[in-house]
Amino acid sequence: MAPTPDPSRRSAASRRAVLDAALELVQEVPYARLSIEGIAARARVGKQTIYRWWPSKAAILLDAFLALSEGDDGQAPVLPDTGDLVADLRLVLRATVAELTDPRLDAPMRALAAEAVHDATVAELYRDRLDGPLRDAKRQRLRSAQEAGQLAADVDLDVAVDLVWGPVLSRWLHRSGPLTEEFADQVLDAALDGLRARPGR
Amino acid sequence: MAPTPDPSRRSAASRRAVLDAALELVQEVPYARLSIEGIAARARVGKQTIYRWWPSKAAILLDAFLALSEGDDGQAPVLPDTGDLVADLRLVLRATVAELTDPRLDAPMRALAAEAVHDATVAELYRDRLDGPLRDAKRQRLRSAQEAGQLAADVDLDVAVDLVWGPVLSRWLHRSGPLTEEFADQVLDAALDGLRARPGR
Repeated sequence: MAPTPDPSRRSAASRRAVLDAALELVQEVPYARLSIEGIAARARVGKQTIYRWWPSKAAILLDAFLALSEGDDGQAPVLPDTGDLVADLRLVLRATVAELTDPRLDAPMRALAAEAVHDATVAELYRDRLDGPLRDAKRQRLRSAQEAGQLAADVDLDVAVDLVWGPVLSRWLHRSGPLTEEFADQVLDAALDGLRARPGR
Repeated sequence: MAPTPDPSRRSAASRRAVLDAALELVQEVPYARLSIEGIAARARVGKQTIYRWWPSKAAILLDAFLALSEGDDGQAPVLPDTGDLVADLRLVLRATVAELTDPRLDAPMRALAAEAVHDATVAELYRDRLDGPLRDAKRQRLRSAQEAGQLAADVDLDVAVDLVWGPVLSRWLHRSGPLTEEFADQVLDAALDGLRARPGR
């Protein structure tokens, strides 16, 4: 018996084809020249199919990026919490560096970050879908450390998140120096212990 | 006697008109639609005049931004060094926040930052003309503190610069929270003293 066509499977395949096409194209053309038409043609789907699922090329790119970077399971991200704050954060910050320097992820992330800088709609999408959930997970891990007495009680957790991840993001964005595991480790040590000279250190 | 026309004065006036036109236009149209033609028309100068002085619209914007933010005296930036590290850095970091939240500066800075994210030529211009000299000044101020025994001897000064300024830049870029003097002060305190709980604190 011939297999019956399964519309939901076909639709998952088209969705996948659109995400792949967007990822390919964003590495080939500048973001300004990336178009829904171009993505549709590359994915061999109709433009209307794309518009049914995504409001904009930034939304496609964000989905493509999420699918690549963390799997497409729709789960909210959670940071490891073994009780060893330094080991957990070191792992995560090194993983951030690995993602930011992964050539497959670099182009879509730069395109999204650049769009988010001056397009408030993209910034909102970026915040709601990507940065917001990640930020919650980071804050949650730091809160757990604060409750365990490992972080100072008067530290604002949003400041703490920015202190640990901000230097890595700004070095990536400005290409202001090498983005390495060593840099990640140095940032983490400096953020936890501070820059100030202290006796016995 | 009628004044003799002064070509160098006329040329300074045209230059100023181009910078003003670029600043006006970047607040009115998206960066992608900002054009040399549009700037020339608004400034009432010929396109060739612009091309004689600037290689690209990003270069115009960078000059406009530099002229606005720090005067056009061509001097390399220097950070205050009164010997009081906290007071000096607080002043400078608050000034950074004031610039980043100044509505006249916000549009050209976002346009430049976004372009620099995915255009390596603009990134280089940005680094050479704006970020590089500022970074040198920051590193110099921190080196002076390190030599005075105020910063830990083993701190990498590039890491230190990123730890103090990175959180402010990344909050501005991602609009991930309020960018206030209070935030600047909190970042500075956290960067100097670290996030870790310590006895007697």
